[in-house]
Amino acid sequence: MTNTTVFTLQTLADLVGGRVVGNGSTECVEARPLQEAAVGHITLLDDPKRIAQVARSQAAAVVVEQPVAEATTPQLVVSDIHAAFAQIIRQFRPDIDDVFQGISDQARISPQAEIGEHCTIHPGVHIGAGAKIGSGTTLMPGVVIMPHCRVGSDCHLFPNVVLYPYSVLEDRVVIHVGSVIGAYGFGYRQEGGRHIRTAQLGYVHIESDVELGAAVTVDRGTYGTTRIGTGTKVDNQVMIAHNCQIGRHNLICSQVGVAGSCSTGDYVVMAGQVGLKDHVRLGDGAIVGAQAGVMEDLSGGEVYLGSPATSQRDQMQIMAVQRRLPEMRKSLQRLVRQVEKLAARVEQAEQAEQTKQDDRDSRAA
Amino acid sequence: MTNTTVFTLQTLADLVGGRVVGNGSTECVEARPLQEAAVGHITLLDDPKRIAQVARSQAAAVVVEQPVAEATTPQLVVSDIHAAFAQIIRQFRPDIDDVFQGISDQARISPQAEIGEHCTIHPGVHIGAGAKIGSGTTLMPGVVIMPHCRVGSDCHLFPNVVLYPYSVLEDRVVIHVGSVIGAYGFGYRQEGGRHIRTAQLGYVHIESDVELGAAVTVDRGTYGTTRIGTGTKVDNQVMIAHNCQIGRHNLICSQVGVAGSCSTGDYVVMAGQVGLKDHVRLGDGAIVGAQAGVMEDLSGGEVYLGSPATSQRDQMQIMAVQRRLPEMRKSLQRLVRQVEKLAARVEQAEQAEQTKQDDRDSRAA
Amino acid sequence: MTNTTVFTLQTLADLVGGRVVGNGSTECVEARPLQEAAVGHITLLDDPKRIAQVARSQAAAVVVEQPVAEATTPQLVVSDIHAAFAQIIRQFRPDIDDVFQGISDQARISPQAEIGEHCTIHPGVHIGAGAKIGSGTTLMPGVVIMPHCRVGSDCHLFPNVVLYPYSVLEDRVVIHVGSVIGAYGFGYRQEGGRHIRTAQLGYVHIESDVELGAAVTVDRGTYGTTRIGTGTKVDNQVMIAHNCQIGRHNLICSQVGVAGSCSTGDYVVMAGQVGLKDHVRLGDGAIVGAQAGVMEDLSGGEVYLGSPATSQRDQMQIMAVQRRLPEMRKSLQRLVRQVEKLAARVEQAEQAEQTKQDDRDSRAA
Repeated sequence: MTNTTVFTLQTLADLVGGRVVGNGSTECVEARPLQEAAVGHITLLDDPKRIAQVARSQAAAVVVEQPVAEATTPQLVVSDIHAAFAQIIRQFRPDIDDVFQGISDQARISPQAEIGEHCTIHPGVHIGAGAKIGSGTTLMPGVVIMPHCRVGSDCHLFPNVVLYPYSVLEDRVVIHVGSVIGAYGFGYRQEGGRHIRTAQLGYVHIESDVELGAAVTVDRGTYGTTRIGTGTKVDNQVMIAHNCQIGRHNLICSQVGVAGSCSTGDYVVMAGQVGLKDHVRLGDGAIVGAQAGVMEDLSGGEVYLGSPATSQRDQMQIMAVQRRLPEMRKSLQRLVRQVEKLAARVEQAEQAEQTKQDDRDSRAA
Repeated sequence: MTNTTVFTLQTLADLVGGRVVGNGSTECVEARPLQEAAVGHITLLDDPKRIAQVARSQAAAVVVEQPVAEATTPQLVVSDIHAAFAQIIRQFRPDIDDVFQGISDQARISPQAEIGEHCTIHPGVHIGAGAKIGSGTTLMPGVVIMPHCRVGSDCHLFPNVVLYPYSVLEDRVVIHVGSVIGAYGFGYRQEGGRHIRTAQLGYVHIESDVELGAAVTVDRGTYGTTRIGTGTKVDNQVMIAHNCQIGRHNLICSQVGVAGSCSTGDYVVMAGQVGLKDHVRLGDGAIVGAQAGVMEDLSGGEVYLGSPATSQRDQMQIMAVQRRLPEMRKSLQRLVRQVEKLAARVEQAEQAEQTKQDDRDSRAA
Repeated sequence: MTNTTVFTLQTLADLVGGRVVGNGSTECVEARPLQEAAVGHITLLDDPKRIAQVARSQAAAVVVEQPVAEATTPQLVVSDIHAAFAQIIRQFRPDIDDVFQGISDQARISPQAEIGEHCTIHPGVHIGAGAKIGSGTTLMPGVVIMPHCRVGSDCHLFPNVVLYPYSVLEDRVVIHVGSVIGAYGFGYRQEGGRHIRTAQLGYVHIESDVELGAAVTVDRGTYGTTRIGTGTKVDNQVMIAHNCQIGRHNLICSQVGVAGSCSTGDYVVMAGQVGLKDHVRLGDGAIVGAQAGVMEDLSGGEVYLGSPATSQRDQMQIMAVQRRLPEMRKSLQRLVRQVEKLAARVEQAEQAEQTKQDDRDSRAA
């Protein structure tokens, strides 16, 4: 990526309220983290031990918390280096929320829909009858809001997000590209050898401050809601099935699959690729490790691993033994042979004793 | 979700052919399952033991199969409670198929495409040259039908479904948002250190009455078809790779991955997050449990678990032992020590005996 | 799929530079692989042992490398049968790149975007301000290029691919339907009980000759890049998290999940459903088997299996023993009993000896 924007170090220092150590007229053409820094870049030193790496990178300047005496690179000294570096990056790659504003006449909005004030509705958006969009909400190209949905205020739906009918989003909900809210649950009954879809009459209710990643799917409830609680954050490619009741402030990492009618408490964490069997309940603050398979209710405040998932303590012991299974097997086989030999020796001793006893008996007779 | 529609209990009873026990003029403003029922709602009692929960919910009315004597909530008595409750829900959240009808002039349809009668083609649909769409089929916004596809009658493609060229759908196929039919298979050969894509000249053939969830991907065959058999149902985020031949009336749950050239018989079930190695065959009625990894052909009519997947019976035994591995290891270590001590005692006894024998021998000499 | 195109065998032989053995005027209406071949089809014999299958298929003709004496089906003899058969298939299912050309006036292209020569930009494409599209690149319907992206030459973006701002694609990059480049990484810090999104200011950089499948998600870097190296191929539904640095010529199979800040060398292979913990490094040429869970750095040039992933050799031994766990447990239980009995016998013998000794002692006294 080439970028022709140029800032002097002094300009950037003024911007973030820092001070320059070295040449303030040094020109910076890009801002990059240390492992990617090169000639002309301003970079970030978040660990003073890496100062040698700054010099090697040939970066033009470096943001530091404390001046580094041995540094040969001009420094920008500032107390909150992450906030400052973020602000500097935004100079080189400015935010783009202001590129489009207002309601596009190339959006297809039902006359029976209600749109709040200060919304940004891009071209190529579809909004169905009976839908209500709260104030300050942004809908990007390809978003489809089917009839009777309610979207709150200050939501941001990235391109190609689709809400099935009657979906409810509260305020400040962010949904990334291509996520699908309210598709039919996977429920069938067999009739004459064919699978007949059962009732799919519910909807999805997403509470305030939830963020969903890209390509997430949340299926509607059977009769009522599938719910995601306030403040919960969901990573890309997660599947949440029908009737689930996800608690508040959960963190659900990528590729997790939650089967139907599961529920979680608050502050639950699921790491990548975790799977939950249907109707499982996770208690407040439960943490489930990557790739675990949860087959039964797990109480809160604990860490769980493995498939089937058990407490971290038990699972760590099991895994430690598993690594030693080949050695255990050899040990067991050796032991079988030892015991056999030992048994033979005992047998022999007993027979010898018996023979002697028989001798004594016959002599006594 | 607020809803201003109001029905009296008697109106709802008349609608579903049921009878009222209690006050027929009770007003219902929403229909909800029991765990979500609140003031003003009509709810469903599918288990008579939960009658106390109905009272606690303060629901306005309850649908029951048999009148419950001790109930304080007005009751709607009807023989098929699920069918009746579904019908009632539809009063509060009516179906929306009728919102848009006909062929939008904002759809981009090739003049070389053929569109059957009574189709609903939304704005923002793309249909390529040589494509044929059967009668009564609905294509929602953002659907892309690439050239030479054949779509049967009464199909329903939700928004952003994409069919690559030459895809074939038979009749009554339902595909949810964002699913991708006919992308290239993942096949490469190495040449001079680079991966060169192999032939991707086949297509996908989906038989009648198949339903695919959201974000499903089905890759085209190499030369011929990737096929999904009649009546098979596929959940969200499933991946079916090139050349697979999926049988009829299968149930494939969310996040399953089927590698290239696999085949399944009829009535096969794969639970969530199952993976199949390429070229694997599952027999009729095989059931594969969640997160299992199938590494070889499995015969039909059986349940399989684990990774690598084996019969449920074997796997349950393996898993039972796995939980006891730490205990087994301790038992083994204890046994090693016991056998050592025992061997020492036998050794000692033998030596004592030998000493006595030597004494006897020397005395006899 | 019905297809009314008809070619004589001689026409097809002329096309591919082959020769006919049998009746050159045989009519072919479709080209299919052997397992799908039927009346009227030309098929492919890639294994001479299957010649009987050709006859059973009633195919009209067969492409062979060497004439098969016992064949009753007309033959098309050609040295490179796969290249020839691919060329023949293309006669029946011609490529469709030529269906649309040029820049659609129904694409929404910012006046501040730069479009190279010979691009194909379909209707329904969105290109933001400051974006640059290289020559010869194709963007299909529903593609959204957000502001300041750079797309190289001869790229092909299938429908509904979305690039977030500042994404960079080099040349000849192919991305299949619905893949999402540059969504926010899954990074939050807790503040007063709420998860606050951390800086998401980086972008995605995809080098030349990369191919991404459908529904792939690649998240942006925190400050800098998430990078995918030259020539790497990625299958459907793969997740690559923020800050990852994927090497060159990797093969990443379907449903793999790579957590944040991982890096891979060149020619790394990950099979289906593999998961990588964050910050893990895979060395050049490392191969990770299906469903494996990588928890720590793995050196290159080796095969790894299992979760947690270990070397194939170790894992194969562990898995071999796991299958025998029930038997091992029984063996161990049997051994415990044997040792108990043996101990009892030794005890008895020792006591008997002691009794005798006591007798001798008392007699001697």
